[in-house]
Amino acid sequence: MISFVNDYSEGACEEILERLAATNHEQSTGYGLDPYCERAAEKIRQAIECDDCDVHFLVGGTQCNKTVIAAALRPHEAVICAESGHINVHESGAIENSGHKVLYAPSADGRLQCADVEAILAKHTDEHMVKPAMVYVSDATEIGTFYTYAQLKALSECCHAHGLYLFLDGARLGNALCAEGNDLTLPQLAQLCDVFYIGGTKNGALFGEALVIVNDALKSDFRYHIKQNGAMLAKGRLLGIQFDVLMEGDRYLRLAAHANAMAQKIAKVLKECEIPFLIESKTNQIFPILPDVLLARLRERFVIADWERVDATHTAVRIVTSWDTQEAAAEELCKALRAFTQ
Amino acid sequence: MISFVNDYSEGACEEILERLAATNHEQSTGYGLDPYCERAAEKIRQAIECDDCDVHFLVGGTQCNKTVIAAALRPHEAVICAESGHINVHESGAIENSGHKVLYAPSADGRLQCADVEAILAKHTDEHMVKPAMVYVSDATEIGTFYTYAQLKALSECCHAHGLYLFLDGARLGNALCAEGNDLTLPQLAQLCDVFYIGGTKNGALFGEALVIVNDALKSDFRYHIKQNGAMLAKGRLLGIQFDVLMEGDRYLRLAAHANAMAQKIAKVLKECEIPFLIESKTNQIFPILPDVLLARLRERFVIADWERVDATHTAVRIVTSWDTQEAAAEELCKALRAFTQ
Amino acid sequence: MISFVNDYSEGACEEILERLAATNHEQSTGYGLDPYCERAAEKIRQAIECDDCDVHFLVGGTQCNKTVIAAALRPHEAVICAESGHINVHESGAIENSGHKVLYAPSADGRLQCADVEAILAKHTDEHMVKPAMVYVSDATEIGTFYTYAQLKALSECCHAHGLYLFLDGARLGNALCAEGNDLTLPQLAQLCDVFYIGGTKNGALFGEALVIVNDALKSDFRYHIKQNGAMLAKGRLLGIQFDVLMEGDRYLRLAAHANAMAQKIAKVLKECEIPFLIESKTNQIFPILPDVLLARLRERFVIADWERVDATHTAVRIVTSWDTQEAAAEELCKALRAFTQ
Amino acid sequence: MISFVNDYSEGACEEILERLAATNHEQSTGYGLDPYCERAAEKIRQAIECDDCDVHFLVGGTQCNKTVIAAALRPHEAVICAESGHINVHESGAIENSGHKVLYAPSADGRLQCADVEAILAKHTDEHMVKPAMVYVSDATEIGTFYTYAQLKALSECCHAHGLYLFLDGARLGNALCAEGNDLTLPQLAQLCDVFYIGGTKNGALFGEALVIVNDALKSDFRYHIKQNGAMLAKGRLLGIQFDVLMEGDRYLRLAAHANAMAQKIAKVLKECEIPFLIESKTNQIFPILPDVLLARLRERFVIADWERVDATHTAVRIVTSWDTQEAAAEELCKALRAFTQ
Repeated sequence: MISFVNDYSEGACEEILERLAATNHEQSTGYGLDPYCERAAEKIRQAIECDDCDVHFLVGGTQCNKTVIAAALRPHEAVICAESGHINVHESGAIENSGHKVLYAPSADGRLQCADVEAILAKHTDEHMVKPAMVYVSDATEIGTFYTYAQLKALSECCHAHGLYLFLDGARLGNALCAEGNDLTLPQLAQLCDVFYIGGTKNGALFGEALVIVNDALKSDFRYHIKQNGAMLAKGRLLGIQFDVLMEGDRYLRLAAHANAMAQKIAKVLKECEIPFLIESKTNQIFPILPDVLLARLRERFVIADWERVDATHTAVRIVTSWDTQEAAAEELCKALRAFTQ
Repeated sequence: MISFVNDYSEGACEEILERLAATNHEQSTGYGLDPYCERAAEKIRQAIECDDCDVHFLVGGTQCNKTVIAAALRPHEAVICAESGHINVHESGAIENSGHKVLYAPSADGRLQCADVEAILAKHTDEHMVKPAMVYVSDATEIGTFYTYAQLKALSECCHAHGLYLFLDGARLGNALCAEGNDLTLPQLAQLCDVFYIGGTKNGALFGEALVIVNDALKSDFRYHIKQNGAMLAKGRLLGIQFDVLMEGDRYLRLAAHANAMAQKIAKVLKECEIPFLIESKTNQIFPILPDVLLARLRERFVIADWERVDATHTAVRIVTSWDTQEAAAEELCKALRAFTQ
Repeated sequence: MISFVNDYSEGACEEILERLAATNHEQSTGYGLDPYCERAAEKIRQAIECDDCDVHFLVGGTQCNKTVIAAALRPHEAVICAESGHINVHESGAIENSGHKVLYAPSADGRLQCADVEAILAKHTDEHMVKPAMVYVSDATEIGTFYTYAQLKALSECCHAHGLYLFLDGARLGNALCAEGNDLTLPQLAQLCDVFYIGGTKNGALFGEALVIVNDALKSDFRYHIKQNGAMLAKGRLLGIQFDVLMEGDRYLRLAAHANAMAQKIAKVLKECEIPFLIESKTNQIFPILPDVLLARLRERFVIADWERVDATHTAVRIVTSWDTQEAAAEELCKALRAFTQ
Repeated sequence: MISFVNDYSEGACEEILERLAATNHEQSTGYGLDPYCERAAEKIRQAIECDDCDVHFLVGGTQCNKTVIAAALRPHEAVICAESGHINVHESGAIENSGHKVLYAPSADGRLQCADVEAILAKHTDEHMVKPAMVYVSDATEIGTFYTYAQLKALSECCHAHGLYLFLDGARLGNALCAEGNDLTLPQLAQLCDVFYIGGTKNGALFGEALVIVNDALKSDFRYHIKQNGAMLAKGRLLGIQFDVLMEGDRYLRLAAHANAMAQKIAKVLKECEIPFLIESKTNQIFPILPDVLLARLRERFVIADWERVDATHTAVRIVTSWDTQEAAAEELCKALRAFTQ
């Protein structure tokens, strides 16, 4: 069986495994205070063109989200996101568990716009309600779309005009930055966001997210929050080593571009077969609406996750590719699609 | 100026003040362990026909809601309510502050139905999402509607079939029970709900809510939770004395019936004047949609709160009466309405 | 039976009951935004000689403590107190429930000194430990002692030198300020503390604590925190009216002085009878060490709480008087003591 | 420089790196639902002789502690530990952040006894205080001591007699089980504890702790808690693979035995040199009290952490060895010690 269920089914790119093996018996300081973390942080500061940004390495995305939001907000403050936002749906209430309400706006494409934010602000006017203090977006979003520079700039200006922090979840940032039509760059991210992260787990690392704190107001005592949230890895160098490798040359973008290319190859065939999509996506997640008979046929050979039921005979599914999806695997799926529809 | 802004603008019914004065220099045990609390609790157990229900007295509604939910749920569990639910909108994030997500369903009339609950359950299927564990309803609702016996019974059966607790916020319970068309009784409430409260603050007391815990699973250690939530009044007898008075004879229902009658008197005149309503309400809160010119005129003499903007020249307002609204005050508003529309 | 168990056994001073009755049917804005609260706040600002201090009225002490600490601290920050501090022992974990560690120092007399604070600071040096951010003291303390001006000034300077807020729990502030030997004044409190409160519950009110926020850094959005902690009373004017009465002339101090005088009258007789004390106290709580046979005799007529077992035949007890303790009641206890020991 | 600062300075045992490389491109289900996790869990169930114990794999110790305690306790419940307990000192308030008070007993040797627990229970008698519900111990303790079977059995019986859960932090469990004088076995742990974990981070893994839930009452919905606490690793198989390797044959104990042997080799030389110890330890952490001149000399070549200042010229230090400490490195330290004292 070949899985197209998610982008964390495999391990890590070879260079990471090699580097871990090569440094295995070195002794280094724990908790992220080692030279590898420092070197990786420095590479990231260069890539985003921000000398005084703070960089921290955490193990996973929910951890990043929970830790950042818990550290940034006072108890009565809330975070705004799209209804499909990971913090709203898929973190088992981690944000509420840290005491904060998640205010969400409906969003057909997974993106948030200034009007969405302002509609929520308009409803939160006094101390009987929570006070919105942060906007959370994902790029790429949970449904495969991404923000253009103009879109993110408009949202950033909106946030700052209203005294809100802008926090960007970059668990799939590579896939956004490499997508056809994207014009947003890492340095621009550091100009527009108050805090964001560069995802490693879904782009070639065993695990790890590189969190970048741009706004000084969010920097103080951040390591306390990492520790308190159980997110401080004893052998922190494992994170430093992985990001040191990922940020070498264009590797980070190259891995993501491969994932995107594999999904888009499949999307192209789906379109040729006149299969409609739930949403237009240019990244490594695509959401075709398949006839149930086709889906049943495909599942003899491929693992594919349901997304939502569309009608009595059709199901929208999520097909995800990764940095490690083999060209042959994608080909095989394409062949099966063509075989069915011809 | 006469205020129709809310039902907690005045003090308490005379008998409560008299009883407080009469007992003022008595010494009694603190924290609700005094004979007045015990006597009031006993009256309530008789009124609801439940010998083994636990009764606790707390100062306010948000306190009750936060304490009950914090005591009942484990950290990953969530509470379901209508979008307009007090816990969702008007508690400054108190529920989230205790660690729990509030899952809400859109509801045009402020009531929740089994289908609303099941739609939310259908989306919460595994450990990446919160686990719904309780349903919260208000009766009367935040927009003046109420539950019939059949409606609450259906919801109760739905909750229990799905392993959910049913919690009823009775801050305005008197107004529901006295409303024209209501057929729900106190004993039925104790049969259908796992926990509910009988509101005093909005029905003749200086403050106070009588919390009734029906389900044994919710009883243990509840006084710890009251204390931890800052909700244990040192001179707890003040609550006991007030509910002892409120539960004498039919006083509790009589006070609420007066409030309803005053609002319905005004509603009748509004209808005569062909003023439409945002929603049909038979309790002490009504929501007429007023022409702005009329509203401006009324506000020379009456304090009336905006509810929502309807169109360029009309505003839905909330008119609230209380146990202490004077017949003459209601008359004066009726006169002003008639004067404008004739 | 006459109770010397605590200082909240009775109701309120007559003038408060009269004022509540006189204003009972007035309509006023809810949630503490009424003219009575404003007038009481203004009286307090005058009494403490602080024009720009914020004053809020809350119902009880645990509520005040929890709300202030939750509003002031970030998640990784901790509060320091004496081991006997109310927040450490008698709030059912309310502070920890809001997410914060309580760091305590042993203290024989219930007071905290700079050296105690610095010993705790010395142990909390990096992000693997909590970060102390506030010092909490009670005046009078839980064991009847109080702070002189010099003592509180030294502690205040210590706190501010180390970047810590100083928070003073004044649930029994009147008793401290009226104690023989006290030289601390209300205006000095406002100079030395960042936040403190003036207790009403234990000094003539039905309930209520007047919270004074001196430090600007603690002022913002405080009403959100009151609401979120379930501490915003719907009929907030009840608090305003009570403090308006308490702060008239010298009533607040006079009520407390009476309580102290009653306890000291009893203490004098105990000393004449050569009964030792667990601790020297000049306020309304005294801690004599009684032979068990005497204690048994007294309990035929008086309710007196155990404090701690001292040896096989002696028990330290807590005798508490209040603003409402009758001279005759104190006399009767004195007589019983003399009868036993003669 | 050679470091004796901690036992997480190096990477992982070779077999783990090999297995990670060998399985790198396999696709597997995420979040710990893969065959490697299942196989490792099965090996653990066999090793502890408990068929129906639940096994979960988490990344780190603080994560385990926070997640277990948050899942097990209701809001008003507290956990008891030794003053030196990791949860009390070195988790940046993670336990309090989840809402629970940590009640600690002084303990000279890092162990907790029934008398310590009962002394705390005796002080927590009603709802104004927190309610102890769990006892937390570490084995080996934070200061290198361990529990014998008789000691742990007595504590377990004490806990269960008082209705308390017993939770054992096994971050250094291997070192305890291999220590000279230990007679406690893995199957006994599963009989005596309600929940415990087998530490990987400090014993040959890159990271990872295997959490064993014995008591049925603690099992339900545990994966929700893992997720909510940000402790669910996307590529969960990394944990499964590592524990699958560690639990092969006697590898887990063998790695720990090496660490212990290295520390005891150094301890032997220290004793020959008549250097006293702060505490007697038979595990991989030793606490000699060194003359400052010696310490300065050693630090030219070795990294050694201060533990506490003993007097004007002596410092207690902590020397830690690991599964990867080279025999030659230990020898070199021994030589330096002998050179100084001869």
